[in-house]
Amino acid sequence: MKLIRHGQPDQEQPGVILNDQKYDVSAFGEDYNEAFFATGGLARLAAFVQANEGQLPLLGDEVRLGSPVARPSKIVCIGLNYVDHARETGATPPTEPILFMKSTTSLVGPNDNIIIPRNSVKTDWEVELAVVIGKRASYVEEADAADYIAGYALHNDVSEREFQLERGGTWDKGKGCDTFAPVGPVLATPDELADVNNLRLWLSVNGQMMQDGTTQNLIFKVPYLVSYLSQFMTLLPGDIISTGTPAGVGLGFKPPVYLKPGDVVELGIDGLGTSRQQVQAYGQN
Amino acid sequence: MKLIRHGQPDQEQPGVILNDQKYDVSAFGEDYNEAFFATGGLARLAAFVQANEGQLPLLGDEVRLGSPVARPSKIVCIGLNYVDHARETGATPPTEPILFMKSTTSLVGPNDNIIIPRNSVKTDWEVELAVVIGKRASYVEEADAADYIAGYALHNDVSEREFQLERGGTWDKGKGCDTFAPVGPVLATPDELADVNNLRLWLSVNGQMMQDGTTQNLIFKVPYLVSYLSQFMTLLPGDIISTGTPAGVGLGFKPPVYLKPGDVVELGIDGLGTSRQQVQAYGQN
Repeated sequence: MKLIRHGQPDQEQPGVILNDQKYDVSAFGEDYNEAFFATGGLARLAAFVQANEGQLPLLGDEVRLGSPVARPSKIVCIGLNYVDHARETGATPPTEPILFMKSTTSLVGPNDNIIIPRNSVKTDWEVELAVVIGKRASYVEEADAADYIAGYALHNDVSEREFQLERGGTWDKGKGCDTFAPVGPVLATPDELADVNNLRLWLSVNGQMMQDGTTQNLIFKVPYLVSYLSQFMTLLPGDIISTGTPAGVGLGFKPPVYLKPGDVVELGIDGLGTSRQQVQAYGQN
Repeated sequence: MKLIRHGQPDQEQPGVILNDQKYDVSAFGEDYNEAFFATGGLARLAAFVQANEGQLPLLGDEVRLGSPVARPSKIVCIGLNYVDHARETGATPPTEPILFMKSTTSLVGPNDNIIIPRNSVKTDWEVELAVVIGKRASYVEEADAADYIAGYALHNDVSEREFQLERGGTWDKGKGCDTFAPVGPVLATPDELADVNNLRLWLSVNGQMMQDGTTQNLIFKVPYLVSYLSQFMTLLPGDIISTGTPAGVGLGFKPPVYLKPGDVVELGIDGLGTSRQQVQAYGQN
């Protein structure tokens, strides 16, 4: 199943994608939030879609999409989880996962604008595979991790490198600015992906390919990450885990290249669709 | 006004403290959450309390208290914000605030047990003044910061030092474990405190005073912190900002001293009450 949320910001309604067409399921009556995932919502939604097949309202292509997950309790991210990206930033590949957090206020729809924060000169991109948690997870064994995953989504882990690396303290300062987490278009349940460890992921800026990697190169794989993170905090249904980015971010260029107003970022992952963000300066249209 | 939430975990009801007595205001019909703060809930609550004065049900002393704020969108913390604490950890006092985040799943009531995580040997304490945001805050000027503050609370920023400092990546790994954020007993509105920059804050372990400081020694004061953080992320009503801890944490002793099962931690801040946590090993009672 492929879940979408459509409509204006903070007023999104649930939907699904069937045969590459977007359908409204607002009659289903639930949002894709913690309560939905915690109470078997995916099975209820599948039954609803089956019962209403052929009668669901079709959505136009121009409909705005929100994040396919309604505000999670947290967005936990993994740093330097591709060897090539670790190398381009000058870091040694980590011996265990690096954890940081994005403010959930950074979450936006997949095609919403990226707003460059005031006083920012180093806003950068990072295409990532995001995992959505389906069940409360604490001290989960790696072998059981699949039971705790609701699905997967495309995520641009937008990052302000000066805020992240040069302003003291942890990376969180450069990761949680408003609009810094475009997620979607879809939340795809695991059955939609043949092999989560063999997905191409890519990102272009103004049509020029900047990142072109594969999840084959993840240092720490998804089941290990779910297990690992659950040793340090309880993961709630709907929580988003972003698994790191491959090489090709702006910080890795010599000299570095950062986003400027008017730039267009496009990204995609096999089976999870594509997204497109226009870059805008704070306070400008 | 002093707000409390009472009852079993995840079923807390609103209450208030009047003349040092706890009263139930579940008839008020709202929880102290984002929507409450965002829509003038404090004024509605004050009117409700006034209209029902003398008729509110008294609560027994044995009632369990939850966090006085229902699950915030985020808990943002400031590191090394007292010179004496920076010194004891061997760090240079920061030139601008250090920001890190606690998972909101770490939030518990003021007198709930602290659970030492599995495989933890360095669970430590930190008494802190927490600020609760009252109004959506983005790019707020320091001079206007007071308008964005709903009130203040006592917080023990429990920290696992090995997870925080020795396991790679950011501090977040050692800050967000379950039970690592006992908050309360009360959320006190600003009028309850004569001077937020002149509050004694202290913490003892098994009756031995470990921290005994004053908010006079905050390097970055509350209005500056609200303004500063709002440059990096939007703060939502109900969000918690914890402002850092004075000297006397376990990490600062030579050799360091950490919590063990059976220990009793007590802490307090002038005007914000006291809290008491018993320390428990994971999986034990």
